[in-house]
Amino acid sequence: ADPTALGAARDRQNRLTKPHGALGVLEEVSIRLAGLAGTCPPPDPSPAAVAVFAADHGVHAQGVSPWPQEVTAQMIANFLAGGAAVNVLARQNGAAVVVVDAGVVTPLDAMVPEGARVPDASTIEPGGRPRLVERVVRRGSDDISVRPAMTREQALEGLTHGITIAGELVGAGYRCLVAGDMGIANTTASAALIAAFTGTDPAEVTGLGTGIDDAAHRHKIGVVRVALARRAAEADSDGTGDDPIAELASLGGLEHAQIAGFILGAAAHRVPIVLDGVISGASTLVAAALAPDVVDACVAGHRSAEPGHAVALKHLGLTPLVDLELRLGEGSGAVLALPLVRSAVAVLREMATFDAAGVTEKSS
Amino acid sequence: ADPTALGAARDRQNRLTKPHGALGVLEEVSIRLAGLAGTCPPPDPSPAAVAVFAADHGVHAQGVSPWPQEVTAQMIANFLAGGAAVNVLARQNGAAVVVVDAGVVTPLDAMVPEGARVPDASTIEPGGRPRLVERVVRRGSDDISVRPAMTREQALEGLTHGITIAGELVGAGYRCLVAGDMGIANTTASAALIAAFTGTDPAEVTGLGTGIDDAAHRHKIGVVRVALARRAAEADSDGTGDDPIAELASLGGLEHAQIAGFILGAAAHRVPIVLDGVISGASTLVAAALAPDVVDACVAGHRSAEPGHAVALKHLGLTPLVDLELRLGEGSGAVLALPLVRSAVAVLREMATFDAAGVTEKSS
Repeated sequence: ADPTALGAARDRQNRLTKPHGALGVLEEVSIRLAGLAGTCPPPDPSPAAVAVFAADHGVHAQGVSPWPQEVTAQMIANFLAGGAAVNVLARQNGAAVVVVDAGVVTPLDAMVPEGARVPDASTIEPGGRPRLVERVVRRGSDDISVRPAMTREQALEGLTHGITIAGELVGAGYRCLVAGDMGIANTTASAALIAAFTGTDPAEVTGLGTGIDDAAHRHKIGVVRVALARRAAEADSDGTGDDPIAELASLGGLEHAQIAGFILGAAAHRVPIVLDGVISGASTLVAAALAPDVVDACVAGHRSAEPGHAVALKHLGLTPLVDLELRLGEGSGAVLALPLVRSAVAVLREMATFDAAGVTEKSS
Repeated sequence: ADPTALGAARDRQNRLTKPHGALGVLEEVSIRLAGLAGTCPPPDPSPAAVAVFAADHGVHAQGVSPWPQEVTAQMIANFLAGGAAVNVLARQNGAAVVVVDAGVVTPLDAMVPEGARVPDASTIEPGGRPRLVERVVRRGSDDISVRPAMTREQALEGLTHGITIAGELVGAGYRCLVAGDMGIANTTASAALIAAFTGTDPAEVTGLGTGIDDAAHRHKIGVVRVALARRAAEADSDGTGDDPIAELASLGGLEHAQIAGFILGAAAHRVPIVLDGVISGASTLVAAALAPDVVDACVAGHRSAEPGHAVALKHLGLTPLVDLELRLGEGSGAVLALPLVRSAVAVLREMATFDAAGVTEKSS
């Protein structure tokens, strides 16, 4: 972050016609975005685009989710038809939607509407219909409780796709990126990544996902524990204990790899990236392990009901904007935060100062 | 609230393509607004208008605020020029602004731009410039630590103005109202009202307002305590202990009276009203004491940093949407919540059901 712009933004907040600090967390957001852009005030973070990275997870075979794996593909069809939560919320809150097939198992062909496929994200239009970009590294990850989710090369390929998609959107004029996700069983892989990157016990970071009972929750924690033990043995044998890419390839999912790349790409372009829930949170841990400065570009859109998400945010030092017991994913919580991010910036860009407005300051 | 519409909304939320309850608090908001409107889905809560009720407080003489009383009038000029926080946030979040002079002490004449005064709120236009409506019951309230803030007739006159302004905005086509406030020392009167209506000790509901040190805070708590003792003696002598109007007239402010009326008016028209911080919260306690059903029309826009606000919201059974350590007033926190309210309704209006989207439900 640019220290001059940070200082200028902090100073300007204190000259605006309001008591010092009265806009709370929004003031901090505006100051951070000034530091990211290197200018005060920072540019308007519009237009925005949400990329929903979808993939399937081999660990689904362990019975960690009550939803059949086909739902990942069915939801992609729902995204492309505009009927899912993220579509409704993106329309309401001013974000274009691009769906990225990062590795879905079920064949999508019959489900994709005519004309919805585009070769890359540069053609996504603000206010336009949702589009699908295919960046399939492999059709589903392996079962992390049995073997690594993917090879190191596949993890790097996923990261590269994510970086490229961020660049395409920034090139197309988007000035705020949002990371969303879809993938049945993806909270299990997220819990494994968060436990590994933060050193937290699986019981503290494994949640109820989209809704399971206590017995299923205990089973899910056990599956995460087995995956971590397998990874620990692997790291002991190949000496990759300190390698974030090895951690990602072993415990993550195909969408985690691409989202981590997407965050790296946004940060490289100094464009803010608004994070959604626990899948984004786990992916940000990967990105931050590779390049700690990416956190300067990150805005925590919301705090999900998944316990691992709060652990990840705390580790990253990020304060969530929306806290409404959401646990949907897709980018829904992040998209809801967009008006708050825009408002934070608008305050710094548009509010009058005490001097300019002729308002008397308090006696001190 | 209409039980048929409530039931239909609850049922519809469970058929939408998402896990049950995954949109958390937003689902509850959508269900409540269906109950208010008596239809499922409820109408889009747009356009929105924020009425900023401004008044001065006699208790300012006790040194409860570090800001001079002239700031109330200076901030009205800032509102009318479009440079205050509420203006910036209203532009960003789609709300028209009307400023109501409910009883400001400083003469406004020289401060009001040409053409800004309008005879009533029915001429306020979505996207138009901010306007001033004069509904002065008296120029400032009396010092509540010494005598009643106003007479019973003045309190009723203020309530009536608020009801009328809500009707004018609804008549002009607004489908969501927002209550804002301005008035140096108004957190002191709010603390007194909240203590009286909830039976809470002044130390628990009196906060730092726009920023005071510990000694000033102790002094402010003492002033609220004196006001409550005076009111208790008064109620003992005139037998008005159970009368919300007497409580309002004795401890409140001129803007509290009008905001309470504004809430009553919105509820009567079955139009949602989004509440801001501690001043709205205190006013809602007055309105709810007069007509408990008004709470069905209320959406708690945010939770302010003032401790009395959380006490008021708990007493009213309302869950705040935005919780970002804001303590500005003006309607700022409520205006920030507007996209969340619109999003909650849009989900119920626009999301696909499992059947319609061909998405498989989870096994149970």
